[in-house]
Amino acid sequence: MRIASVRTHDIRFPTSRELDGSDAMNPDPDYSAAYAVLQADDGAEGHGFTFTIGRGNEVVRAALDALAPLIIGKPIDDLYQRLTHDSQIRWLGPEKGVMHLATAALVNAAWDLRAKRAGLPLWELLASLSPDEIVSLVDWRYLTDALTPAAARDLLSDSSDSRADRVSELKKHGYPAYTTSAGWLGYPDDKIERLARQAVADGFRMVKLKVGADLQDDVRRCALARTVLGPDVRIAVDANQRWSVPDAVAWMAALAEFDPWWIEEPTSPDDILGHAAIRRAVHPVRVATGEHIANRVVFKQLLQADAVDVVQLDACRVAGVNENIAVLLLAAAYRKPVCPHAGGVGLCEAVRHLSFFDYAAVSGSLDDRVIEYVDHLHEHFLDPALIAGGRYLAPTVPGFSTQMRPESLTRYAYPEGAAWQ
Amino acid sequence: MRIASVRTHDIRFPTSRELDGSDAMNPDPDYSAAYAVLQADDGAEGHGFTFTIGRGNEVVRAALDALAPLIIGKPIDDLYQRLTHDSQIRWLGPEKGVMHLATAALVNAAWDLRAKRAGLPLWELLASLSPDEIVSLVDWRYLTDALTPAAARDLLSDSSDSRADRVSELKKHGYPAYTTSAGWLGYPDDKIERLARQAVADGFRMVKLKVGADLQDDVRRCALARTVLGPDVRIAVDANQRWSVPDAVAWMAALAEFDPWWIEEPTSPDDILGHAAIRRAVHPVRVATGEHIANRVVFKQLLQADAVDVVQLDACRVAGVNENIAVLLLAAAYRKPVCPHAGGVGLCEAVRHLSFFDYAAVSGSLDDRVIEYVDHLHEHFLDPALIAGGRYLAPTVPGFSTQMRPESLTRYAYPEGAAWQ
Repeated sequence: MRIASVRTHDIRFPTSRELDGSDAMNPDPDYSAAYAVLQADDGAEGHGFTFTIGRGNEVVRAALDALAPLIIGKPIDDLYQRLTHDSQIRWLGPEKGVMHLATAALVNAAWDLRAKRAGLPLWELLASLSPDEIVSLVDWRYLTDALTPAAARDLLSDSSDSRADRVSELKKHGYPAYTTSAGWLGYPDDKIERLARQAVADGFRMVKLKVGADLQDDVRRCALARTVLGPDVRIAVDANQRWSVPDAVAWMAALAEFDPWWIEEPTSPDDILGHAAIRRAVHPVRVATGEHIANRVVFKQLLQADAVDVVQLDACRVAGVNENIAVLLLAAAYRKPVCPHAGGVGLCEAVRHLSFFDYAAVSGSLDDRVIEYVDHLHEHFLDPALIAGGRYLAPTVPGFSTQMRPESLTRYAYPEGAAWQ
Repeated sequence: MRIASVRTHDIRFPTSRELDGSDAMNPDPDYSAAYAVLQADDGAEGHGFTFTIGRGNEVVRAALDALAPLIIGKPIDDLYQRLTHDSQIRWLGPEKGVMHLATAALVNAAWDLRAKRAGLPLWELLASLSPDEIVSLVDWRYLTDALTPAAARDLLSDSSDSRADRVSELKKHGYPAYTTSAGWLGYPDDKIERLARQAVADGFRMVKLKVGADLQDDVRRCALARTVLGPDVRIAVDANQRWSVPDAVAWMAALAEFDPWWIEEPTSPDDILGHAAIRRAVHPVRVATGEHIANRVVFKQLLQADAVDVVQLDACRVAGVNENIAVLLLAAAYRKPVCPHAGGVGLCEAVRHLSFFDYAAVSGSLDDRVIEYVDHLHEHFLDPALIAGGRYLAPTVPGFSTQMRPESLTRYAYPEGAAWQ
């Protein structure tokens, strides 16, 4: 199977009009997707995207157009390597920023195509691969001081006999979720209270609040949430990179009385040593990060430095499915839970496949594992994420659930679509 | 002074035709610049660029076009903050990859404009600022666990009385250089031998060889260079990120007999802990990196982790002059020499200003400090770097030396220029 063509789209939703998605670093996001459609030489299509929050989405689309010639006319099987090993393109990263976001969209589109062809939802396709096949999907350069291909193969083989049981369990019971919908920074207190009560009624056992703009506000909001939720529902807090290391330590000391389960993105996503220092200081509060971690090399170091308790991979920030398999293997080797970042546009749809695969074939554990859920923009996808009783239901439609409805691709096309006129 | 307009250019030189610039990771670079011209409301112009090696340069140009609306009509003084603190754009990094390369070009163009207006070469303009003014140019977010503004001010104040002496000394004697022109991986042995002899005749006391593609070749080339150069001329080697950590350690053990001065870019530029491990293993050979370090947060950690001996800042990879001042201050605080990356297109022209400023006002030292020099493409600049006796002469023309000749901007415009027809 070869790639015959690549179509690209700049899709934006005017979410800043409602303050949905507002946090301390991102006050007015317009949730967006740089979107790619791969067409194979037999006419089959794979859809993939990366998520951005508005301005600059056209630059990621330009990156998609710049990468397309590397893969058109070529087989689909080595697409990830072709995109990340081009020597001239590599200079623009390596493996980070705009080019890597675009790579994620193309790699994910290729997996959507493969899974559709296999007639399986992506997580089941991945869970059907042998340990050797899974190991071969990873680019091991820069990883072998922490994990070797042989050690990864052993790790996968250890649990391969019981995979089928876990696949059945996932189909029956789904996978735990937590909700961020209650805690956006732009929401007034009464809305937070109402949404927190609703979250518990919906079966969620963890709620996340945005913090980091104003300490007095954060204390009030955390106190309110703890009162409404009681002592047994977990409250995660998320600073969206707002702090330097000393700020993070001081701010979390002031929030400790509300028993936060984790502090997410306390500082720069590039600051491995900073996360390690914060983690030592805020214990027993856990440190979580990942949605802005540029690539597997940084994830590797966060684990080597014992800098995180929770690995929050993102479906579209690193180079899609292939690089995320490296992250899942590293996290399993270091025995840290993966709790993916989701929300945005289509991230819930996509990333659930990775967590389902993780439980089925990699970590084999659900302990302290939850996938983020935000009730937002799902209606634009052909195979939207479904939640019941605070759990993601298992995806059943062939593919990676990354395909938007044709009418959404038209209406939210930027700047020419009707939503922007 | 406000910005009235931003013009952008995609400039590429077909250097891959000659194997100049070939190394283990970049076999066929077409040295390129994403180039910006800021016009102030009084008509004055500042020119700046970032360096790439070909494919994807159009994406950086698209990033310049995406950033321009953030600064048009706005004062020039807070341009750096406007470009790096836009919440939607920030999602695409933060502060890394294509958007950050484009930010570098714009920030550098602003400094070219300021220095021209002041009637001073940039290094002298910077060396005329007070410690407080210099400190105010830095974005201190994410740095204060390693260096505070107050400590930076103290560091600058300590040497401010003797600045004038060092400025005079620089004008008289220039700044030491080393050459990479002899050691490109694509060159045959007889060419390396001839160019190494020429380098010594030209007054250079250090020569750099590219390594990392084939160990037997590297041993032969290093032996040849050591024989030709004798024991007293330093030989640096540069692997351009080719190795994982265990490879780097093994490979350098095999090259140790040739007494390399430093090993440059032994592994991924994102791998702080990897550099620290390599440094411990290859001692007394020094570890150098920087040309691909994404931002000040990663430089900070390389210093905190004692992972490097030599800080190789690049004029256009981090966000231009402002962020490089943070890097100079961090390096001075940790007492590590800065030996900038140069070569490419215009990097020698630009980065010498930063080293001259470093000696005049920041580190106050020339010990083990050298600026890379590559004899390449200087003819396209209005104020080309000048070398005599193995030293950079002090720039004397007002500005940042970042302006290309108009005829070069026309001839090498991609894809429409005559050089590409």
